Amino acid sequence: MKFGRFQHQSRSFYGIVEGDRVDELDGSPFATWKTNGKTHALSAVKTLIPCEPRNFYCAGLNYAAHIEWAAKRKGLPVKMPEKADVGYRSNNALAATGEAIVIPADSTGPVQFEGELVAVVGKTAKHLTEASALSCILGYTLGNDVSERSWQKSDRTLWRAKNCDTWKPMGPYIATGLDPMNLDVEIHINGKRVAGYNTSKMIFSAQHYIAEITKYMTLHPGDVIWLGTDDATEPDLKDGDVCEIIQKDIGVLRSPVVRAKA
Amino acid sequence: MKFGRFQHQSRSFYGIVEGDRVDELDGSPFATWKTNGKTHALSAVKTLIPCEPRNFYCAGLNYAAHIEWAAKRKGLPVKMPEKADVGYRSNNALAATGEAIVIPADSTGPVQFEGELVAVVGKTAKHLTEASALSCILGYTLGNDVSERSWQKSDRTLWRAKNCDTWKPMGPYIATGLDPMNLDVEIHINGKRVAGYNTSKMIFSAQHYIAEITKYMTLHPGDVIWLGTDDATEPDLKDGDVCEIIQKDIGVLRSPVVRAKA
Repeated sequence: MKFGRFQHQSRSFYGIVEGDRVDELDGSPFATWKTNGKTHALSAVKTLIPCEPRNFYCAGLNYAAHIEWAAKRKGLPVKMPEKADVGYRSNNALAATGEAIVIPADSTGPVQFEGELVAVVGKTAKHLTEASALSCILGYTLGNDVSERSWQKSDRTLWRAKNCDTWKPMGPYIATGLDPMNLDVEIHINGKRVAGYNTSKMIFSAQHYIAEITKYMTLHPGDVIWLGTDDATEPDLKDGDVCEIIQKDIGVLRSPVVRAKA
Repeated sequence: MKFGRFQHQSRSFYGIVEGDRVDELDGSPFATWKTNGKTHALSAVKTLIPCEPRNFYCAGLNYAAHIEWAAKRKGLPVKMPEKADVGYRSNNALAATGEAIVIPADSTGPVQFEGELVAVVGKTAKHLTEASALSCILGYTLGNDVSERSWQKSDRTLWRAKNCDTWKPMGPYIATGLDPMNLDVEIHINGKRVAGYNTSKMIFSAQHYIAEITKYMTLHPGDVIWLGTDDATEPDLKDGDVCEIIQKDIGVLRSPVVRAKA
C-alpha cells in the first residue's frame, strides 16, 4: 500500500495511491484513518511531502562504496564509522516531489545529490531491540540529501552544506510492507541512470539504527530516519537538470534544479 | 509581556502571565490572539514548553570564557569559532519547566548544564540583515543544553551527548521587548548560584546569527535559536539535584535531575 499527502485547491489530505488514482482518507496513517469515498486523479492533485517530521534523523555515513569514493575524492584515508551515530537535518529544507532544488547564488559548489531510503515512524517507540525495531515503522519513502561539498569542508557543522531551503526533497509516497534491507535505489539525471545501489549494503542496518536511537530517544509518529547513500554522487547538479531518486515500490522523487540569480 | 503555554485538565492553551495569574488566550502568539476572559492561578495549571519548534537551531560555541574553560579542561588549545555556524538539536529532548532531566543508566558522565538564552521566531523570515534581524523574533525564553561530556568525545555527532529524552528543558515563558544582547543569565544548583554571565559577551550576536541563517534558510513561527552558554558548566549534575536557569524578565526554568535505574 502507498500512502501520500495531497493538496487539492486549498485543502490537504492523506490518500492511498492506486495506479493513477488517489483514494482520499479521513484521518491520517499516523493515527486512525478510513477511506471517505472521494477519489482524485493523481494528475489533478499536488503531491505534498508525505509528513512533517517532529524529529529528522539521518544516518550520515552508512555505505562503504560511498565512503571510499568520498575519501578518494578528498585525498584522505578511508575511515569507516565505528558505530551508528545519527545526525540531524532540518524541516525548513524539505521539498515535495516536483518542487525545485534551488542552489543559492553564492554557492561555489559542487552541489551533489545523495539518494536515500527513508524509514517513516508510525508509532511512538522506545527501547526497541533489533528484532522488534521495524514494529514502529509505518513504511518507507525516498530522500535526496542534497549536499554542497565546499561548505561541507568549510563549515564546523553541516548547516548550509545540507540544509539550505529546498535541499531535502522527500517523497513521493510512503510504501508499506517493504524489506528495507533489500531495495534497489537508482538516481537518474535528465533521464539517465548515474548511480544506484542495493540497501543490503548498509554498514549498520535500519534495525540497528532504530534499536540504537531508541536506547536514548523516543521515536514519534511522523519522525523520519534517512538511511544514507551508497555509490559516487556525481555528476554535480546544474541549473536546468532534473534529478530523480527512484525505487520501484515507492515511486519517483523528482526535483528540477534551479540556480538562484544573485 | 510574557506568553506561556499551559495545560488545564486535558486542554492546552496559550496565556499571558501576570504575577501569579494567567490570562487565557484564544489563538496563539504565533498567529492572531485575544484574551478570552478566562483567568487561572499559575499554581492551578501545568506549564508546557512554550512552543514545539519546526526547526531547532543552536549556536553551539558562542562565548569565549566557556570555550576557554572547555579547552583547558580537555587539555586542548583554545580555538575560537571563525564564523557563525549553527547546529541542531531535536524535539524529542524538549522538557517543560518542572519536568525531570533523566540521566540514562549507561551514562558514565559527566552530565552538565548549559544555561542559554533562546530567541523564539514569531514571523516567517528570509534574507534579513543584522539591522532587521530582530523583526522576526517574538521574544526570548531560556534553555538548558544538557550535555554528556564522555559521549561528546566518543560520538561522531552530538546525538546522544545532547539529545537524550528530557535533555533540552525549555521555558518557562516567552518574554517580549527584551534586548537579547544585555541580559544576565544565572545557573543555580540546589538553590546556590554556580555560574552566570551577561549575553553581551556573545562572540556572534543574535542579530548576526539570524542574518546568517536567513541567507539560506527560511525562519518559521515557532522556530527557536539557542544562543550558547558562557562560563564553566560545573558542578556536574547528579541524581537528586535541582538545576535552575534564571533570567529575571523571563523567569526560572527549573529541572529536577533523576538518574534512571539500570
